Amino acid sequence: MSGTTTSDAERPADAPSGYDASVEDALAVLGMVAYLELAAFTRLAADAGLAPTLAQRLELSDLAGQSLDHLGRVRDRIGELGFELEQVMAPHAGLLVDFDTRTIPSTWWERLLKAYVGYAVADDFCRALARPLDDGTRAVVEDVLEGEAHTALVLGSLARAVESDPTLASRLALWGRRLVGEALNAVSAVLEGQPRFRPLLEAAMADERGADAQQRLFALLTAEHSRRMGRLGLAA
Amino acid sequence: MSGTTTSDAERPADAPSGYDASVEDALAVLGMVAYLELAAFTRLAADAGLAPTLAQRLELSDLAGQSLDHLGRVRDRIGELGFELEQVMAPHAGLLVDFDTRTIPSTWWERLLKAYVGYAVADDFCRALARPLDDGTRAVVEDVLEGEAHTALVLGSLARAVESDPTLASRLALWGRRLVGEALNAVSAVLEGQPRFRPLLEAAMADERGADAQQRLFALLTAEHSRRMGRLGLAA
Repeated sequence: MSGTTTSDAERPADAPSGYDASVEDALAVLGMVAYLELAAFTRLAADAGLAPTLAQRLELSDLAGQSLDHLGRVRDRIGELGFELEQVMAPHAGLLVDFDTRTIPSTWWERLLKAYVGYAVADDFCRALARPLDDGTRAVVEDVLEGEAHTALVLGSLARAVESDPTLASRLALWGRRLVGEALNAVSAVLEGQPRFRPLLEAAMADERGADAQQRLFALLTAEHSRRMGRLGLAA
Repeated sequence: MSGTTTSDAERPADAPSGYDASVEDALAVLGMVAYLELAAFTRLAADAGLAPTLAQRLELSDLAGQSLDHLGRVRDRIGELGFELEQVMAPHAGLLVDFDTRTIPSTWWERLLKAYVGYAVADDFCRALARPLDDGTRAVVEDVLEGEAHTALVLGSLARAVESDPTLASRLALWGRRLVGEALNAVSAVLEGQPRFRPLLEAAMADERGADAQQRLFALLTAEHSRRMGRLGLAA
């Protein structure tokens, strides 16, 4: 995929036609996004507590706060639809536990790469599923996930380290492949566990190439992953 | 102390006269408050990650977010005074580490009580030291610390548990005495380590009774502690 695109996923300006997304569809995606933001908050706050310097601790705490702000915006949208955050989130609780158990970073660099490319797959998945949703919900999802909050923090230090250390670069390239593989497994598990997402995914992938909706999704997610790895100078 | 007061510390409406607090005095107090808020954020976020239900996780995450908001307001005030958060906080980094090491809760109830009465001593200390400061700084300190964010969450469940379990009540009364003892030790250590606080404390305690400023402060902090324990139905 070209490295010149600045947005995270090229997507049609309007939702694909042929599928009339329901409020339940919107809530299913919003609930998943809410849980991902809560998980990101917990993770960033824990990273902040472990940060070696006060400056990094403040920076990571700020990022954690941004995740909470995102959660608040999703909560507002869920409220506008007449529902409550907790009940809408509940079906998605524990979403990343399995992924996290299978991808425990063994170094600080692996931790940073996971923060940048690991969780991004989940974000791309949510963005893709939001395509057929009503304009208001889609706008919230895209806006909340667009930040790639880690980017500045992570890209700078990681890209410098990779550039100056070819051994690290090849080790992290391997780690990146591991991460994307496990992330795609996690996406499969979500699609199996949440049948509601199937028709939504069909509609979302209508304009993409591939044999079926899941293959189209995986091609999209893999391409986005490759783009991110490329920005770090790493082979995908 | 009477249980009818609603404010956390009765204090004179105006700063005591006779001491002309400097910008450095204001920064010293603001830096300590900022660090306490950052520590509260880290602690609450960790508690949220351990919470047994999604509802509690959301509630504790919200509280953690409030601490970050408080930190942001202190940062703004420090900025108004022409300084940067990180450098102003740095002398206070690690403030509670020793206190925390000496007061590791062994049950969930001990953890809640520590959250409610343990860290409150540090808040009262900051409020007391802020009395002689300029109006703008004092207002920020009082406003940020006034919340007693834990109150609703903690008071309800803790007071119910204590009421129905006399054994728990006597154990927690002991734990409370331990907490306030260690907290006062921590305050002593701060006063020894930060000579700048001495004249500020003299000015702050001018209207209180007691042999010297530190005794007056300790009487005030102990009275506030007793009031909080009383609200839980616990002997101080």
